[in-house]
Parts: sequence; C-alpha cells; structure tokens
Amino acid sequence: MTDQPRTAPMPAARTPAAEDLAPLPLTAVTLAPDSELGAWQRLNRERTLPHVVERLETSGVMDNLRRVAGTSSADYRGFNFADSDLHKTLEAIAWEAARVPSDQPWEDFVESAAALLTQVQREDGYLYSHVQGHDDQEAWRDMRWGHELYVLGHLIQAAVARSRATGNDDLLAVARRFADLAVREFGPNSARMDGYCGHPEIETALVELHRHTGEQAYLATASAMVERRGTGALGTGPFESAYHQDHAPIRDAREATGHAVRQLYLNAGVADVVAESADAGLTAALDAQWRTAHGSKEYVTGGMGSRHKDESFGDPFELPPDRAYAETCAAIASFQWNWRMLLASGQARHADAMERALLNGIASSTGVDGVRFFYSNPLQLRSGHDGASEYSPSERLDWFACACCPPNLARLVASLGGYVATGSERSARVHLYGSGEIRIGATTLTVDTRYPWDGTVRIAVAGPLETLTLRVPSWSTEATVEIDGTSASALPDADGYVRVGVHDGAVVTLALPMPVELLAPHPRVDAVRGSVALRRGPLVYCIEQTDLPPGVAVEDIRLDPSTPVRTGPALASLRTEVTLLTEAIVRSADGEPLATFAPRSSHRADASGMLPGRINLRAIPYARWANRAAGAMRVWIPLDEEATRA
Amino acid sequence: MTDQPRTAPMPAARTPAAEDLAPLPLTAVTLAPDSELGAWQRLNRERTLPHVVERLETSGVMDNLRRVAGTSSADYRGFNFADSDLHKTLEAIAWEAARVPSDQPWEDFVESAAALLTQVQREDGYLYSHVQGHDDQEAWRDMRWGHELYVLGHLIQAAVARSRATGNDDLLAVARRFADLAVREFGPNSARMDGYCGHPEIETALVELHRHTGEQAYLATASAMVERRGTGALGTGPFESAYHQDHAPIRDAREATGHAVRQLYLNAGVADVVAESADAGLTAALDAQWRTAHGSKEYVTGGMGSRHKDESFGDPFELPPDRAYAETCAAIASFQWNWRMLLASGQARHADAMERALLNGIASSTGVDGVRFFYSNPLQLRSGHDGASEYSPSERLDWFACACCPPNLARLVASLGGYVATGSERSARVHLYGSGEIRIGATTLTVDTRYPWDGTVRIAVAGPLETLTLRVPSWSTEATVEIDGTSASALPDADGYVRVGVHDGAVVTLALPMPVELLAPHPRVDAVRGSVALRRGPLVYCIEQTDLPPGVAVEDIRLDPSTPVRTGPALASLRTEVTLLTEAIVRSADGEPLATFAPRSSHRADASGMLPGRINLRAIPYARWANRAAGAMRVWIPLDEEATRA
Repeated sequence: MTDQPRTAPMPAARTPAAEDLAPLPLTAVTLAPDSELGAWQRLNRERTLPHVVERLETSGVMDNLRRVAGTSSADYRGFNFADSDLHKTLEAIAWEAARVPSDQPWEDFVESAAALLTQVQREDGYLYSHVQGHDDQEAWRDMRWGHELYVLGHLIQAAVARSRATGNDDLLAVARRFADLAVREFGPNSARMDGYCGHPEIETALVELHRHTGEQAYLATASAMVERRGTGALGTGPFESAYHQDHAPIRDAREATGHAVRQLYLNAGVADVVAESADAGLTAALDAQWRTAHGSKEYVTGGMGSRHKDESFGDPFELPPDRAYAETCAAIASFQWNWRMLLASGQARHADAMERALLNGIASSTGVDGVRFFYSNPLQLRSGHDGASEYSPSERLDWFACACCPPNLARLVASLGGYVATGSERSARVHLYGSGEIRIGATTLTVDTRYPWDGTVRIAVAGPLETLTLRVPSWSTEATVEIDGTSASALPDADGYVRVGVHDGAVVTLALPMPVELLAPHPRVDAVRGSVALRRGPLVYCIEQTDLPPGVAVEDIRLDPSTPVRTGPALASLRTEVTLLTEAIVRSADGEPLATFAPRSSHRADASGMLPGRINLRAIPYARWANRAAGAMRVWIPLDEEATRA
Repeated sequence: MTDQPRTAPMPAARTPAAEDLAPLPLTAVTLAPDSELGAWQRLNRERTLPHVVERLETSGVMDNLRRVAGTSSADYRGFNFADSDLHKTLEAIAWEAARVPSDQPWEDFVESAAALLTQVQREDGYLYSHVQGHDDQEAWRDMRWGHELYVLGHLIQAAVARSRATGNDDLLAVARRFADLAVREFGPNSARMDGYCGHPEIETALVELHRHTGEQAYLATASAMVERRGTGALGTGPFESAYHQDHAPIRDAREATGHAVRQLYLNAGVADVVAESADAGLTAALDAQWRTAHGSKEYVTGGMGSRHKDESFGDPFELPPDRAYAETCAAIASFQWNWRMLLASGQARHADAMERALLNGIASSTGVDGVRFFYSNPLQLRSGHDGASEYSPSERLDWFACACCPPNLARLVASLGGYVATGSERSARVHLYGSGEIRIGATTLTVDTRYPWDGTVRIAVAGPLETLTLRVPSWSTEATVEIDGTSASALPDADGYVRVGVHDGAVVTLALPMPVELLAPHPRVDAVRGSVALRRGPLVYCIEQTDLPPGVAVEDIRLDPSTPVRTGPALASLRTEVTLLTEAIVRSADGEPLATFAPRSSHRADASGMLPGRINLRAIPYARWANRAAGAMRVWIPLDEEATRA
C-alpha cells in the first residue's frame, strides 16, 4: 500500500498539479444533512442504496453468481455485464462506510458478496458470471461486446474503495487476482491487437489500482490499452467503430463521438494515464475532446449524448431537447472526467461543468422518493408523449433491464464529499459549495450557506491555513468577497478562482448574487432557436404541465423577454427552496392541426396572430420535474414573437 | 381471373367509389420521356433496375435461394427477409413489361427466377429461404420477426403484376401455393392468436390477390389478420408492441405510431380491406390515422418517421430536420396508403400528399445517376456531420445491408403511370400532372405541361369524354381554367377538384401560378422554429454548402423575409429546370464555441449582434441535393432575427 490518504475516493496523480489540488480523504469533508448535497446523501443512504441492494437480488444479479457457485439453479438474467451492478453497489457501500463509520448496516451483505465472488473466481483469476455460467461462452473471445474488462474495472473500483474506506482487503484480493490475469493477457507484452475493451472503464480503474498498490504493471497495462485503441481491431458491423471509439487512435480523435458513456469513461481513463505520464500528445487530445464535447455537444443541464440511436453523441450543435438521450451515466462520466481534468489543470471550467451536471442532469435522474430513476434525461416532454419505453418514459421507473444508472448514482452520491475541496496543510481550494465542514491537516473550514438556493457562502477558518482559493462559477458576474467583514478583490484569476490570504479565525464571505438569467442557445443549436432557458445560480429551471391552468398546454406557453422573472416560494415536497414566477403569454392553436407547415402569411402557421392570453407561470428546478404528475415539460421556452419584436 | 383491367398496377375496390375513381390499366397512361415523371421512369429502366438486378446477385439474394435448391454452397446472407428484394424487383420488371412491351430485356431473368422459386418451394407451398436454408429455423415459429408473411406479400404483388402485365402466370402459381398455405394456417378459422405478421404487407397483397383471382379466402384471411392485430400476441421485449402496431386493436389505434413503414403498410392494407367491406369502424380508424400522421407527423417533404431509433414515428410535432429518418420506404408506403384513401374518398388531400411525397421525399432518395440511394432522407445535414452510418450518410450509397428501398423505388417508379388518372368512358379525373397521353375507353387525353416546373397544364380531349375533373393542388390559391380559350370556374369543390364539361376536340387549360412561398412550421414544431422552407409549386427547395462562397457555412445563412426570392436558371446536370435565387444574410459566429448556450444579453449567444454579410444564395430542389459534393444542406432556413424585427 502507498501513502495515499486511506479514504480518498477519488483518483489522484502521485504528484498533484498544485499544492491545493491534492484530493482529500473522504473523511475530510462532512456535508450538513440539511444542505442540498447532504440531503441527497441522506436520501441515497436511506432510500436509494437499500433499494439497489434489494434489486441486486430480485433482478438476478446475485443469482447469476450463485449459479456459477452451484447454489442457484436460476437461469442467467440480464445483460452480460450484470455483475457490474453488484460491483458499483459495493463501491457505494464502501464510501458510505467511510462517510458514516458508526453505522454500517451492509457489512454482512458485503462480506457475503465478497465470499461469493471469491468462490466463483476461477483459479486463474477470471470472474465474470456471464461467461462462467454459459458453456458456449469463452473468456476474452469477444473484446467488442464481452464487457469482461468493464466488469473488472468496476470490481477494482469497489475493491479500492473498500480497502481505503475500511481497511478490509477481502475484495481487493479478488480484484487483484482478476487484474493480474488481465495484465498477463493484455499487458504491454500482449500480442492481441484487440487487447482492449469495447466498453472503456478498465483504464481508469487500473490506474487507480496502481496508485493504491504501487504496482507499475497496472499502469503499464492501462497505458497499453489506451495506445492500442483506434485501430478498428474490435471489428465493425451494425455498429460503427466510432461507437466504441475504435475509429481513430486516441491521440488523433479530437471529436467526442459514438456511445457517450464509452467516450466519457475513456476520456476519464486517458486523463488518469496522463496524470501519471504527463504525455503531451494525450493531453492535447483530451483538450480537443473537452472543447468539442462542451463547446458543441453539451446540454444546458450538463447532459451529453443527443441520440437514442446507439446512445451516442450527435453532430456538433445537434442538441434536440425532446430526443435528448442525456443518459444519467453519461453525465456521471462527464463529472468524473471533468474532476480529473480539474485536478490536472486547476481550471474552474471543469468544476463548473461538474456542478452543472451534478445539480441538473444528474440530479434529475432521481425522484424525490429516492427509489425511482430516469435512465435518459430529456429537456422536453411533449403532450401526447408515448412513454412506453424505459429509455423514454413519462415518469421515473424503479429499475431497468440495463440497470447501469441506479448503482452508478449510489456510488457517486455516497462519495460526493470527496469532490468538494482539495488542498494541503497551507493551502485549500473549494470547488463545490455546501454547508458542512472541511478538515485539512490541522485546519477546519466551517462552511455556512444555503447554496445552491442562495449565493452567500460563509467560511470560517480554524487552524493554520494560509491561502483559501474559491471557485467563482462561470454563471456569476458580480461576485464579492469579504474577509473578516472587509472587502477583498473578487476578481477571479485566469483559472476562474479567487485566492485570498487567511489566518486562524478568519471568516471569508463569498457572495454570488443569483439573478434569474434568460439563457439563449448558441446560434447553431437549431433545435431550440427562438427559445430561452431560465437559470438561477447553477440551477436550470423548467415548466411542467401540472402547474398550468386547465386547457393550457406547455406547448402554448410563450415568454415575453421584457417581463421580469422573479423568485417564488419554496416547494417543500420537491426539496425546492426557490421557485420562479413570471407572467407568460399563451398562444393556443385553434382546432385540430391539418398540416405541420403552412405559408408564412397564413393564420394557421403563425400563432402570433392569435389572441394571446396571459397566465401566471411557475418554473421549478429541472432536477425536480416529474415528481408530481406525469405530463409535458420543457426547459427551453419559446419567446413570444410579437412581444420580442415590440 | 376477374374482369379487372389486365394491366392495372393498382389495388382497386371491386366497385369504385365514383365513376371517375376507377383505376386505369397501366397501359392507359404514357408519360413523355422528357416529362419529370417520364424521365424518372427512363432513369429507373436504364440505370436503377439493371443495378438492382445485378445487386440481387452480388448481395446474395439469389444464392440464398439457390442454396436451398442445392445449387449454391454460399452461406445465407442478409436479413431474413432478403427474398423480398427479389420479389419487389420482379414486380418492377412486370410493370416495365407493361410499360414498354416492345422491349423486355429481363424476361430470361424472370423466367429463371420463377423456375428457381418453383424449385425451392416446399410441397406445402412454403417458400422462404431463410428458414428453409437453416436447420435450426422452423416455419411460422416467430410471427414477430419471421417476416414470412411479409415476403409472401411481396411475392403476391410481383405475381399479380406479372400476370396482369404479361398474362404469364408462372409466378402466380407459386404465389398462390404459398398464399393457400397462409390461408390454411392463418385464415379466419385459425386458432393462432398471433396469426398475423410483425411486418404488415401481407394484408394489402392478399386483398389484391382476391381481386385478381376472385377467391374470397384471401380477403377473409386479410380481414382476419386485421381483426387479430393489437392484442400484443406478437410479444414484447426490447421493442415495444407499438413498434409492430400490436399495442391496440386497429379499430382503436388512432395515432400513427411505432415503426413507420409497418404502420403505413398496415394502413394501406386496412384501406384495402375497407374498400371491399365498407366497414365503418375501420374507416373511422383510418381517418384518425390520417389526421395524426399528416396533421402532426409529416415532414414538409412528405417524409414520415422522425426517429432513427426503431425507425419510428415520433411524438406529435416531433419533427427534427437533422435526425429526420424519413425512410424512403415510409414515403412510398404513405404514397400507396394515400392512393387507396383517394380511391375511396375522392379527396384531393390524398393526391396532394402523394405528390408531396413523390416529388420531394421519395425523389430525394435516388441520385441523378440512378444508382445511388438514400435510405433515410433528412431535411438537414450539418457541417461536421459524421456520415459513417449507412442510415445517416453524407452521400447516397449504392446498396444497403437492409436493401428494402432500392427495389421498392424501382417498382414504384415503373408503375407511376397508374397513379396519374382514374376514370371511365364518360368521366375522367387527373390526379398527377405530366406531359403524355391518357387513354380512357375511346378517349385520348393529350397532356402538355412542364409541370412541376411550370403550372400550366394543357389537356386536349379526343373522344367522347363528357366530364374532366382536375386536381387543384392545396398549394395553389390562384388557379384558373380555360376551356377552348374561354375562362371557366376554377373554384375547386369540397374535395379539392375542379370539374369541367368537355367534348371531343376540347382543349382545357389549367393554370396553376407558382409563386415562391415561404412556409412556416406549425407553432408546435419546435425543431424548426424561426425558420422558413422555400416551396415553389409542389417542390420543396434546399440550400447546399457547395453553392456557398468559401468560408460561409450553411449554418450561418439567414433569410430576410422582406427580400424577394426569384426563380433562377436551370441546372441541367441536376435535371432541374428552375432554381431559386435570393440575397441572404450571413451571421458568422466568431471563434471557437465555448458553450452551447449563454446569457441572452451576451454577444456570443446572439449572432444577430454580429455584423452581417450579404451573399447571393441559390436554392435547388430538395430532391436533387447531394448530387454534386458531400456537404451541409438544409431545407428549413432560419429567418434573420434583426431583419424580421425591422
């Protein structure tokens, strides 16, 4: 074992990019139970995680393994990567064990799962119930769809988490035996041209296992997999090579493309390799990937992946709100990739992207009850939506045939504390804001804020800290900073952070005013032309059918850009402290539509010719939609043409 | 055999809805070789059909059958419905034989194909090379995906066409043996709850076989299949029941949904059943289907099917131009369904829909070379499009893994003459305009027009005809009619036709002025809000990157609605007689995009704040795009916000 902080949940280069960019042990941060993130963690622990553990049983994941062990006669169920549902859950439980060490309700479950995995594992280390449970399957036969290395990646992450969180290396022993097999099969000396996985994930896991154990072979294997990729060796077929990011060497692939989760997990892994190697070519490729992904393929909610077809990225600026796939796991992957980019660069744009995804496109995936989920996170749902598919439903569902998202959410939310701040004895940096405590060396930072509902963040310093560096979010243009009641410069540096000198007993107050903003799409985003999105602070808002008077459809709502949007009262049932209120225009089309187009001059085509009505309109945080009633919703709201002209 | 016109290509109820709605024999109509439709037929005969026949060989379709006959050892290739490629080609050849009886270059091919099919056919009539060529397959085992009845449907259509066109019943004998087996298995007395096909097509074919042979059992079987559908008996899985239109009984299914080609072929079949049964419930369901399909789910090009995922219809008004699937076969299916609705109702809206699809969304599928095709027909292609997929390419391709479209085009185009007019000895009705001759009984109508490039249609009557009924297209608002040089009322009746009394020697001139129209989307079509489409007469136009000056991207073009759009010179290489010209505004975004959204007030988000350039812009018919160079294209062009406000 190395000198990594024992409970650090996050990947970290051996040498941080800067003194204040070193990850902290997970136990360093406590989020207050009534803070936005703290409340989410509580919901995750009390509702989501028990639900997920139960579903491992009912969906067949545990039986798939028992079947190999000879203790179940049930048929194999689910996709071939079903083992990963268990591994992600074990990782979530590990972070919970670190977060609440006094209460570990799942320890028996984990121990029995570890015992089962040990029993199922082949002598050579192989551990993948789909192959082991089928006589007609063969290990490593299908690198494209086999998912063995993907599953191993999640097993490694679970094992490292458990080792760091509890010191128990039972899972780590299993994971290392499997990882050592992968090193033998696919390490730098492997002659297999297709020695990499159709679904990236193993890369980031192997680098982390290297960090945790000090074993160079894991890093070298991850690096070899990165270098091999892009030759098309995985093969083609109904899916193109780009689906698996196998169409071009990673050094040349500048455009985020193909299956979004695969691309973003891959980018996270490449960032991990770069963190250990400082490879300039890979760094440039990652930067290009970031610019195409965030510059032309990211939703305002932080979601990524425009297409249901192949769960993939679209063309540049192809960002339909209704058909946004915006898979929960893609937003989580973007969060994880941006974290690694943040640790390497110290640039706030990465933390901005993390926050945008976390509070919007990831938060939207979980219902306020904690046990229902969206797999895809569209920005619009139409009246008359046919919500029969689990990938395009009208309401959150409690599980999925492909259940990657719920346990992925559980492990992310359990580990959120690890993303709040970085630093060292002398210098700390805060990336995400929420009430609670941050303990760095001998210093405790007590954070007091209602963020993201209010932009005032008060941080009391107790200890020898010298420098406190605070992110000024990109949405904020009028930030102010006070130290002990005295104004200080709030001008962010080139990286987007404001740096203040502090002392024991200092109180730093960062004020981020949160006016309601009307966001416009980039002119090339055709799908929401002429529309605006409402944002306040980091939160994107939406309107829902259930808030409208009878007979008024979401589709008929228009905004007058000169009408102010003000904050409205809380909605406790939606864990929402601030709603938005405005007066909106209603343009109802008359009668049944006869065609989808008409001459521009005609009445029917131009709803602005119709007599407008006016209603009071409430907007709620996008993350909280579909918690009251199934129905139409939209984030991007059309501006009223007549009012905009006036 | 019945008294059906021997070469009528079109389904026709035993008793036409009106005297002038009786289909004509295919030989009744000759389209001039230099007319728009006649030139397409020539291209189809000289380029497309030879290409398709050759591809039957190279793609494995013929070998799949020879394999069963024992004369090929090649592996089965293609989808399980590959036989249908042959059947559709045989149908196309039959219509060509009727159209050009003096020259029948494919007769040897057809005879050898018929002999091969006869040899392959099982004693009980079964004929489906995918099952017969695989020991592990079983006939009728999988009604959902098996496609046996779909393939039988196309075999029947080919056989009826050949019988009508040439009098040769060699194929008909094969088709009837297979159809008789289907009657035994799935006729009204069948107990199979799932006794209908996952891919509709058999329904319309069986009704036509009934018309051609007089055999009631074929109609009764089609009717039974229609009545069974919608119970979900086909099963569910990753695809929902609605994909196969199996989610609700046909009488209740008011919304066009699921796989677009399946829905539209099904509707054609139901319309055929209705034509023979006058069932009020099915008629009402078809009307509702028509209103939802055309009122909220049809592209301005006549294309249908908004989603790549499942090749399906979208929600109402979900009509993305870039991700329009608009499969060629769906537009053809819509054309065929509307023809049946037209014959039943006499309403011009159905002929309008046929024309819209034919001249735009169907015509776009074939390159000017006649040997390259689009499978999907988007209304926008972006700069930077990743065109690697055959279902979303940047250029037309010469064949497809799923090759349904090219032979479907061949059979449609070969039979176009059959859709031009209907009528009887005393009364004729013209639906589609093109130079040529229409022979009805003892009357010959000589049509002289440059349609669709010019709206003047001159029809000379030679013979005893009493009434001539002409469609006034819905795009035309200022039609005039002259009889022998004297103005007559051009006010269309409630059905959209103008009816004039004629005599031997009369000359009727219908003038349909063709101003350039700016079409606006219905206010609920979010995806093209703030944009217009250019239409002149029945033709929708588009702009292409190849027509723009260097450095100007299609995405940066804006139209000023007050700037006139005028007609421009012909482009012979594109078989285009009329281009469109205007002055457009160019709004170039500055620098690399950093995000896909920004506060509305900021410069970056609002391209209207940028200094506009002005360029001369050429638009070409949408049907002719992607014939010069691969590159961006769009039908819906954004209006310039500043110019529109002014």
